[in-house]
Amino acid sequence: TELEDAITLPSQRKGDRDQFLEDIFRMIMEEVVQKGTDASGKVCDWLDPEDLKNTLDLELKSNGESSRSLLDHCRDIIRYSVKTGHPRFFNQLFAGLDCHALAGRMITEALNTSQATYETAPVFVLMEEVVLKKLRQLIGWQTGDGIFCPGGSISNMYAMNLARYHLFPESKQKGMKELPRLAVFTSSECHYSVMKGAAFLGIGTDSVFVVQADNRGKMIPEELEKRIQGAKSQGAVPFLVSATCGTTVLGSFDPISEIADLCKKHGTWLHVDAAWGGSALLSQHHRHLLNGIERADSVAWNPHKMLMAGLQCSALLLKDTTGLMKKCHSASASYLFQTDKFYDLSYDTGDKSIQCGRRVDCLKLWLMWKANGTEELEKRVNKAFTLTRFLIEEIKKRDGFRLLMEPEFINLCFWFIPPSLRGMPESADYWEKLRKVAPTIKERMVRKGSMMVGYQPNGDNVNFFRQIVINPELTEGDMTFFLDEIERLGVDL
Amino acid sequence: TELEDAITLPSQRKGDRDQFLEDIFRMIMEEVVQKGTDASGKVCDWLDPEDLKNTLDLELKSNGESSRSLLDHCRDIIRYSVKTGHPRFFNQLFAGLDCHALAGRMITEALNTSQATYETAPVFVLMEEVVLKKLRQLIGWQTGDGIFCPGGSISNMYAMNLARYHLFPESKQKGMKELPRLAVFTSSECHYSVMKGAAFLGIGTDSVFVVQADNRGKMIPEELEKRIQGAKSQGAVPFLVSATCGTTVLGSFDPISEIADLCKKHGTWLHVDAAWGGSALLSQHHRHLLNGIERADSVAWNPHKMLMAGLQCSALLLKDTTGLMKKCHSASASYLFQTDKFYDLSYDTGDKSIQCGRRVDCLKLWLMWKANGTEELEKRVNKAFTLTRFLIEEIKKRDGFRLLMEPEFINLCFWFIPPSLRGMPESADYWEKLRKVAPTIKERMVRKGSMMVGYQPNGDNVNFFRQIVINPELTEGDMTFFLDEIERLGVDL
Ligand SMILES: Cc1ncc(COP(=O)(O)O)c(C=O)c1O
Ligand SMILES: Cc1ncc(COP(=O)(O)O)c(C=O)c1O
Repeated sequence: TELEDAITLPSQRKGDRDQFLEDIFRMIMEEVVQKGTDASGKVCDWLDPEDLKNTLDLELKSNGESSRSLLDHCRDIIRYSVKTGHPRFFNQLFAGLDCHALAGRMITEALNTSQATYETAPVFVLMEEVVLKKLRQLIGWQTGDGIFCPGGSISNMYAMNLARYHLFPESKQKGMKELPRLAVFTSSECHYSVMKGAAFLGIGTDSVFVVQADNRGKMIPEELEKRIQGAKSQGAVPFLVSATCGTTVLGSFDPISEIADLCKKHGTWLHVDAAWGGSALLSQHHRHLLNGIERADSVAWNPHKMLMAGLQCSALLLKDTTGLMKKCHSASASYLFQTDKFYDLSYDTGDKSIQCGRRVDCLKLWLMWKANGTEELEKRVNKAFTLTRFLIEEIKKRDGFRLLMEPEFINLCFWFIPPSLRGMPESADYWEKLRKVAPTIKERMVRKGSMMVGYQPNGDNVNFFRQIVINPELTEGDMTFFLDEIERLGVDL
Repeated sequence: TELEDAITLPSQRKGDRDQFLEDIFRMIMEEVVQKGTDASGKVCDWLDPEDLKNTLDLELKSNGESSRSLLDHCRDIIRYSVKTGHPRFFNQLFAGLDCHALAGRMITEALNTSQATYETAPVFVLMEEVVLKKLRQLIGWQTGDGIFCPGGSISNMYAMNLARYHLFPESKQKGMKELPRLAVFTSSECHYSVMKGAAFLGIGTDSVFVVQADNRGKMIPEELEKRIQGAKSQGAVPFLVSATCGTTVLGSFDPISEIADLCKKHGTWLHVDAAWGGSALLSQHHRHLLNGIERADSVAWNPHKMLMAGLQCSALLLKDTTGLMKKCHSASASYLFQTDKFYDLSYDTGDKSIQCGRRVDCLKLWLMWKANGTEELEKRVNKAFTLTRFLIEEIKKRDGFRLLMEPEFINLCFWFIPPSLRGMPESADYWEKLRKVAPTIKERMVRKGSMMVGYQPNGDNVNFFRQIVINPELTEGDMTFFLDEIERLGVDL
């Protein structure tokens, strides 16, 4: 009967297979690429979790379903998913839909291979190197190393592990137990992955020394020095400073040059988390925000954010030319990295990674870059700044909008002061009422499906909106719509 | 001039955008889905790295290129990439091309969202939970927890971190420094990610106690007990046993029940790395290989391998119902996991992860499952065993093929003994010569493009082939071709 299975298993009929893929592609074009990016449609068709569960038929059963029924499911999946390419999606640090990046992603999925060896990914091993080199050049490095990681959080963790290994190569074998206590430094505005990394890597969150940021969200170098000295006096070894270029909420840039001086003085690895802000390097006009980045030992940069490459696309870039990453991460598995292969083994780059199978994350960025050229990408970056500037000027003209601060980057943080609070004294009660405004407006916009924008409290500041414009298709009209819509949604508050 | 940028930046013309995507889709259908899975084409069009560099125009320039030129690049990229869906691709623990999984991947890429919150991925948050539940049920758990990770290596690292946190919750804050020395146990046939994990998590590879495997590659429980006692006598705390179900090279299954008894006795977390072998759980006939798996604390299972979901699709499954994963990994970032949202916050599952942005990895598996039903997937699994069995019987009939052992699973490990070595005494010289056979045949098949299959040494065994049949489209004819082709390529050796 086993052999019978082998004989009777119906193969995917080629015609059915091709037709199904055609139908899905057609649906993607109509529902996601066309309607999903059209301002006249909804950015989301919201259902509360329990209602959505009842609406979708998610259960996995014994029997398969017809193509027709599968297509219906797919239509529902698309319908109730958020349209992140929609012109009113401002909710995350990614947005928009670049057709070349999407094409690269589709090819990636069709070829479905792993980046581990040249043998299984000849084109992509070479391509990854070209893309990483280009990113390094924008940092100002003519040589170096790098790898694409599954997201910026993991890129930051790579940096942490490399810094540890650099100072204490024995840590790979011996672990943390035999090392002195280590100390990481980062600002209060850092991304939470620094904390997650310290926990995951066995360093512990208590060993993350949080350095005060100034009122614009930038790490204060003098405070860093104090913290380094404080850690030393506790017997800890400062092994890593993680500076942030483009903080998640405020979009602030830590002063790299001053921080680099301190790292030099104290023999500390300098990592720059430019997951968000790195793309400003493409702009001649704005790259000064990252002045000094070439002095970093490592940089994390996510083209899946501002450059719209698509999730996941995160590069960890290293200045190192001594093969540190390979030494730090290699396990030399003999079934994958055979030493008697017939080609140059230096192309088997997979052992630099902590992964084994590794998705191809370079093609989508590469194809988008080929299509636009560096110049067009630069214009996109500039445009995001320009539209943000336009919004700022608009906000200043309108009643009821209050900037948290003048942004350096494209994180536009502001409160909407509803009519009932305008002109009121800023008492505890005022702030308590204001705290509730953003969540209320957010709920209304999501239920209406007109827009999505994030809000959060930060430090002493109660809930405020964080507006992010990435999508280069947007116009000043879209910016005006954004402000008008907030006003409409909050008019009775 | 900045504002000018904003105004003059040409938007993607919608017609051009749609046409480019159409052209790419057409190319994918023809070159990858159709020709790429047709046995009459090559599995790879091999060029050595330097030649491939010269053939492809990979450089990223200032100016963008025309659609025509981009399409030419894409055609080259596809041409020189390995066709992992080709019926002669046996090189990795993944293969084949499932049209429903591919459709799911295309929708995922078009929707391009992050699994972090219900707000940005309402459908996929619910879907992930349904898929994880299904996988847990196949393990034998009616409740529990889980998450999709970027690959099995990282799933294994999650398990290691969870086991550590479970025993020493203070480790999250305090790190390894304040803990007793920890000890991990795994067999000599384990996947190398256990080593990578111990290094990355600050435990250190010296704290991985490698337990001897028997001559069929299975962990020997008595040896495990000795190693646990040995570690204890050195003052180390045994916190994790990582058993492997479906080892990477030999496809062996560690005896879970006996190992679970020992884990119970010593208060140790039991992780089962079923990244490769987990899919056997779908088969009523073969699931006994994993008997006892329901006693594990955590299981890693990669549907991107035997189930053909497509890279990356790896589930970490937990028996825990106390929210351990969230406690262990959460950082409660206030910009993402606001506590004053208008929907049930238990659906914001992202803080269970060590990532922030997280790809949607569930849809491809879900859609394939919906299309086939559990029954058809079971048949596929059975078919892979059957075709392997067919090959074994063929091999036994032929001169010049020698099995390393009778496989339990679908890893068919064998030597090809070329004519010149047949019947020779098995001296050191014999083995030295045999060692070179697999690399030579591999080089020839790759240069010819007729086939791809992996080889490796393992323990005392010199280079042998590891044949893996996953693709349910294959027939006995394809199996015969495989053996014939090895004979053809090695006839003069
Ligand atoms: C500054 C910063 N670093 C790192 C990350 C993490 O990137 P990812 O979501 O790819 O893990 C983010 C994400 O928003 C970020 O803003
Ligand atoms: C037994 C086993 N565990 C874990 C892994 C790692 O999985 P991934 O390649 O998804 O990291 C593999 C990969 O081959 C494996 O064979």
